[in-house]
Amino acid sequence: MKNYFWEFVSTKKILFGDKSSEKLTHLLTDLKVKNILLVTDPGIKKVGIEKKIENILIKNKNKVIIYDEVQSEPSIESVLNCFKFANNNNEVEAVIGLGGGSSIDMAKIISLLLTYGGHPLDYYEGKKDIPGPTIPVIAVPTTAGTGSEVTPVSVLTDEKEGIKKGVSNNNLKPYAAILDPELTIDLPSYITACSGIDALSHAIESYTAKPSEYINSEGGFSFQGSFSVTDMFAIESIKLISKNLVLAVQQGNNLKARSNMLLGSLFAGISFSNAGNAAAHALAYPIGSRSNSPHGEITGLLLPYVMRFNTNVTQEKMSNMKNIFAINGQNLTRDGTNLSPDNFVLELLKAINLPFRLSQIGIKKEDLTKIAEEGIGIERLMRNNPRTANVDNIKKLLLDAY
Amino acid sequence: MKNYFWEFVSTKKILFGDKSSEKLTHLLTDLKVKNILLVTDPGIKKVGIEKKIENILIKNKNKVIIYDEVQSEPSIESVLNCFKFANNNNEVEAVIGLGGGSSIDMAKIISLLLTYGGHPLDYYEGKKDIPGPTIPVIAVPTTAGTGSEVTPVSVLTDEKEGIKKGVSNNNLKPYAAILDPELTIDLPSYITACSGIDALSHAIESYTAKPSEYINSEGGFSFQGSFSVTDMFAIESIKLISKNLVLAVQQGNNLKARSNMLLGSLFAGISFSNAGNAAAHALAYPIGSRSNSPHGEITGLLLPYVMRFNTNVTQEKMSNMKNIFAINGQNLTRDGTNLSPDNFVLELLKAINLPFRLSQIGIKKEDLTKIAEEGIGIERLMRNNPRTANVDNIKKLLLDAY
Repeated sequence: MKNYFWEFVSTKKILFGDKSSEKLTHLLTDLKVKNILLVTDPGIKKVGIEKKIENILIKNKNKVIIYDEVQSEPSIESVLNCFKFANNNNEVEAVIGLGGGSSIDMAKIISLLLTYGGHPLDYYEGKKDIPGPTIPVIAVPTTAGTGSEVTPVSVLTDEKEGIKKGVSNNNLKPYAAILDPELTIDLPSYITACSGIDALSHAIESYTAKPSEYINSEGGFSFQGSFSVTDMFAIESIKLISKNLVLAVQQGNNLKARSNMLLGSLFAGISFSNAGNAAAHALAYPIGSRSNSPHGEITGLLLPYVMRFNTNVTQEKMSNMKNIFAINGQNLTRDGTNLSPDNFVLELLKAINLPFRLSQIGIKKEDLTKIAEEGIGIERLMRNNPRTANVDNIKKLLLDAY
Repeated sequence: MKNYFWEFVSTKKILFGDKSSEKLTHLLTDLKVKNILLVTDPGIKKVGIEKKIENILIKNKNKVIIYDEVQSEPSIESVLNCFKFANNNNEVEAVIGLGGGSSIDMAKIISLLLTYGGHPLDYYEGKKDIPGPTIPVIAVPTTAGTGSEVTPVSVLTDEKEGIKKGVSNNNLKPYAAILDPELTIDLPSYITACSGIDALSHAIESYTAKPSEYINSEGGFSFQGSFSVTDMFAIESIKLISKNLVLAVQQGNNLKARSNMLLGSLFAGISFSNAGNAAAHALAYPIGSRSNSPHGEITGLLLPYVMRFNTNVTQEKMSNMKNIFAINGQNLTRDGTNLSPDNFVLELLKAINLPFRLSQIGIKKEDLTKIAEEGIGIERLMRNNPRTANVDNIKKLLLDAY
């Protein structure tokens, strides 16, 4: 056991609530920046949110250039295109990431390249350290799920190798996050479901992560296991999501449910960006490269089985979750008091029409050993898991989920 | 009712736990700064903590100059002296505030003057805005009470006018806070009591502060009323302090109790630096200028009477506190379940040997009307109070406390 010690790193400013996107200009004024790069995706352009934000910036006399071609889980090629576009224009002083996790992740990597130059893979393969702060990123999420608005993580797809690569460095944490629930109203129910269950998996994985005093997180890991502050945010997140996810999926324009999901996703992001995720997120990497399912569908599918796998070493926290679900999950199960937390999450998956077995998402049974091996290789996540993983017990977990 | 909106501003890095003061050097390396001003007070020098921190800095090859003459609630003259001292030496790149609230408040104002020049009163009377970030302040508290390590507030004494003056600006929030429980072990029991009850008053005043959606906090107020994030930190703080304050006062070297008090004080600071304090802190100004009692003794004394005053408009939160005190305050009252929260705090004051009546601290009965008038004039605090204050009802409150 190392000393009792933790370090809580936070996004400096978090603006939440009605019309908060209009306060974007206050932040830019504080930062004394004029030239803005707005990074977003075609879907956001289509529903008119891009125009809305652009108008706010123009009214504030900012000079704004827009890259709106972000694809889901962006490729390295698209990063280079966006960087070239930004570099060809006037000197960009701040980057706004508007959209889901992909747009915000793209904003992070572009701010890094604009500040220090180089190629994404210099940093993503950990060859090059990020020497210090980058030009400021302001994250404006339009989904309630990734928590990317407050995390140090950016994920890209290396299409050559056919795998996803991530970088996690506190210098990549956005300077500010703006969470305007109205921007999430247009989100289709399937994306609401996938991103919402991903947020729940962040909350539960970081809540039940091995306590930080039993993890030696020295030496470059930004995830350090659970501690009092991350527990506090995780618990609130679990309350908010268990109460509001079904509502947000079924009633897209229920602004109260959307607002609570956005808050729950934020709190989960704050928690996991310090404590770290665990087995469900580690296993999502090898499964993701063998399935077309989006990230949240995979972590959500794995979540109940990982909870079951960890039950015996997380009894107190499981019992706390059982109490929360009994009270806050009544819209899901009238007899919710009788469900164990893992079975509650299983019911939740069914209620929001997501797959709950690996066989449903194109995974082959003969690949499970390989998946277990690759999953336990992702040390920065697996070491946070409260129960020690090995190929045998993880393979059993995967068979349970099959 | 305005829109539902809040802005949560946080200290970027919070390091907490055993030997955390040794991590000071990591922060300085990240910041790429060499020349350090260490600001502290004679008491800290005497018990050897100054030397300890100085040695850490020298070992790290920092160039350090030390000002160790901070007095309680520093005078403007002493600020000018410290500023002159800092300016006469090599270019200071970061300021470490080591000690109680006074040393940390001094570090904040010195970093402001070193960055933008001028005279303290330019800013403390609000004539001059603080144009942007200052050179970084790292706060290392040695008391568990003010929360100054995470707040935007700095308080000075204007000796000419015989009053205290404060400035509250988010640019004054320290860059990082380092909380090492071992540094609080030497704190005398009276200071432990005063600072601990002050932290409880921060937690309770910000927890029961008027909800942010009913306060128009536009226009320069950094305090915005209570909201979900501040509630979360306040509740945890109330739990920690009600369970550990008596222990920390009675058993100075109980490191667990000291650690929990330091955490409780931190959480209270995070809460009130966003939500704001209320009537007890507003009234502490006019009472402070008529009494020799330290700040915490006054806010602590007022706290139970302010809670009683607000009871009818804070019923749900009072009921939550009653439940916490019944569980976490059992070391104080074996029949704690039967006490109302205001009476619990009254018993707490008695248990830690602090005055609990205004007549005990030299306040004259004939001054109560004047105190009520001056207190309700402190709008930035009074407007957070959940029950509307006027001279009549505040005078009744003061008579109750007399």
